[in-house]
Amino acid sequence: MSPDGRTTPAAEAERIARAALTRVIEPGDEQVGAWLLRHGARKLLTLLGTADPDPGALPGAGPRRLAGLRARADAADPRRDLDTAAAAGGRFICPGDPEWPTQLDDLGAARPVGLWIRGGFDLRHWALRSVAVVGARACTPYGAYMAATLGTGLAERGWTVVSGAAFGVDGAAHRGALAANGATVAVLACGVDTVYPRGHAELLGRIAEQGLIIGELPPGDHPTASRFVLRNRLIAALTRGTVVVEAEHRSGSLVTARRAQSLGRHTMGIPGPATSGLSAGVHELLRGEAVLVTDAAEVAELIGDMGELAPARRGPVLPRDLLAPATARVLEALPARGAVTGPRLAREAGTSLDETLGRLQELHGLGFVERIGDTWQLTLRAIRRRPAR
Amino acid sequence: MSPDGRTTPAAEAERIARAALTRVIEPGDEQVGAWLLRHGARKLLTLLGTADPDPGALPGAGPRRLAGLRARADAADPRRDLDTAAAAGGRFICPGDPEWPTQLDDLGAARPVGLWIRGGFDLRHWALRSVAVVGARACTPYGAYMAATLGTGLAERGWTVVSGAAFGVDGAAHRGALAANGATVAVLACGVDTVYPRGHAELLGRIAEQGLIIGELPPGDHPTASRFVLRNRLIAALTRGTVVVEAEHRSGSLVTARRAQSLGRHTMGIPGPATSGLSAGVHELLRGEAVLVTDAAEVAELIGDMGELAPARRGPVLPRDLLAPATARVLEALPARGAVTGPRLAREAGTSLDETLGRLQELHGLGFVERIGDTWQLTLRAIRRRPAR
Repeated sequence: MSPDGRTTPAAEAERIARAALTRVIEPGDEQVGAWLLRHGARKLLTLLGTADPDPGALPGAGPRRLAGLRARADAADPRRDLDTAAAAGGRFICPGDPEWPTQLDDLGAARPVGLWIRGGFDLRHWALRSVAVVGARACTPYGAYMAATLGTGLAERGWTVVSGAAFGVDGAAHRGALAANGATVAVLACGVDTVYPRGHAELLGRIAEQGLIIGELPPGDHPTASRFVLRNRLIAALTRGTVVVEAEHRSGSLVTARRAQSLGRHTMGIPGPATSGLSAGVHELLRGEAVLVTDAAEVAELIGDMGELAPARRGPVLPRDLLAPATARVLEALPARGAVTGPRLAREAGTSLDETLGRLQELHGLGFVERIGDTWQLTLRAIRRRPAR
Repeated sequence: MSPDGRTTPAAEAERIARAALTRVIEPGDEQVGAWLLRHGARKLLTLLGTADPDPGALPGAGPRRLAGLRARADAADPRRDLDTAAAAGGRFICPGDPEWPTQLDDLGAARPVGLWIRGGFDLRHWALRSVAVVGARACTPYGAYMAATLGTGLAERGWTVVSGAAFGVDGAAHRGALAANGATVAVLACGVDTVYPRGHAELLGRIAEQGLIIGELPPGDHPTASRFVLRNRLIAALTRGTVVVEAEHRSGSLVTARRAQSLGRHTMGIPGPATSGLSAGVHELLRGEAVLVTDAAEVAELIGDMGELAPARRGPVLPRDLLAPATARVLEALPARGAVTGPRLAREAGTSLDETLGRLQELHGLGFVERIGDTWQLTLRAIRRRPAR
């Protein structure tokens, strides 16, 4: 988009090329990522589609690899993918878009080409105050209980709960956040219109309504083992910290946690019995740099910044008149003094409860509002900046 | 004792005065401890027994406190206490004695006046490789299991297990060490001839046979709340590190652990469910400086030094001809090559199994032998120094 928010033809072409590249490049491929940084999406796509590209332009690639990429580039149909996504209420965002979570740039050459998104809220604003809660699929009842309790407790404190929508810990964390009318983001290792795991169809449906579903893969694409692993880097990079609830030795959750650590994010673990193999991986982390936490308050204490100016550190706070209209309406409906419940605010703003709560989460990320239990109020800073009516 | 090992009359008088002072001074009293460092035991006892001592000699004491101390000094009968202890197979050791564990000197003015001991082994040698395992009296079955498993695993690795002989974690740790034919030291908050808690009469009897029972209080003296707290400093100072198995917030075990920390010893905690109040105190520690451990191997890895020269760092290794005769006999009975079991070695040395195992623990502390599972062998260093036969 241009600075005035309208898309230029050049930017639109670059965006379509990036959408195409999500079908060509495997997530996290740092070699192609380096080519992308060098050439931009349009030129890279052209190079990949060329029978005999200049070897100096795509350094390090053998002919077999180039042939594979060319086959994928030839088959890509980004306009159809964008239409499919739009028909399912989805969208595609790129680096540079206002909604792009700039913390993903910390991934360097492994930064996603773009993100496919389902759900009506602003990812960047939600991710400003987000924390990952991850862990074993085959967790114990204790693990599920802790994940759900953390999800609820973090949501009640106004944190967006990010996880991978898997069975076990992931699902419990999402459900805990949803149960508290909180914000939750599912990061998938497949197309955001793909229901995986199948048993989570209903949960994913609820997240698409009340939260956000995001991923790097284009519509209809399926997960693979390596995509799960590489999805974890997204969860780590998107959030301020990662909490591992239960994990065996050598589990994917530990990969997420170590990636979070290497990105300078907070890494936390929930302790469990020393006799439990499902806590062994967490304990391994806790014997390293990770911090032991036992509840949402301890997580929030570690990753939260002091005072309401906190979100400013992650990105510039939008002036009020640059807010999305739906978000601005919710902000306007908040009383100058005192807290209101979500349902009451929804009536005031003339919109649905889910919509209101999602917009409140954006405003929370931006530092305009704060959550106190089940009620919301303007921050001191927002009151000071509030225009006279 | 004089350098040749014989007691001089002056040293004997000082020792008797110290025995008397254990009935006069409460454990850990740093004010009286400072007077003791200044005057020595004999002079301090005389000063405390004087109706109107020079106020400059006992700075900081009010008349009421001095009257209390005088009453106790008048009532003390150290020769009777020493006879009582000797009749029960006990002894009294003072700073400067060969058996004195010099690491207790780290306590400064809170150093014990002396230690009453039951059990036939050398406390200093045993304490060279010792670790404290402490925790809640009302522990869960998980806590008892972990304490027993740690006690056994540490004993199998040749570590002396030190604890407070209380119900729950303490008892389980002692029993775990005893079950592995290992060395264990019970540190009491009462006279070492006093059975407390009563329900541990049999356990204390076994420890007196197979291990050591030590304490600051003279024969027959009873525990009080403050004595339990101050006993903990002794456990912390005696050992290379303290493992807390289960502990509620504000529990005595946390006092021990924090004291260990302030003395520069390792502090460790066994994690448990975040939902368990009996793990809450441990998790509090682990959120600070303490290290999370899940088994004896991790404890040994942390507190153990690399290689067999380790014990030299804690104190000078005795030349072979300064070993107690019973200890030297066990050393002589060890084969030049290969490992032997305790029972076989006991036959070779012509003594009992308990005696043999206790002496082996002394030799282990001194770096002469190492334990491999249930067998013992000479260290490389001991073989090199072995005199030709």
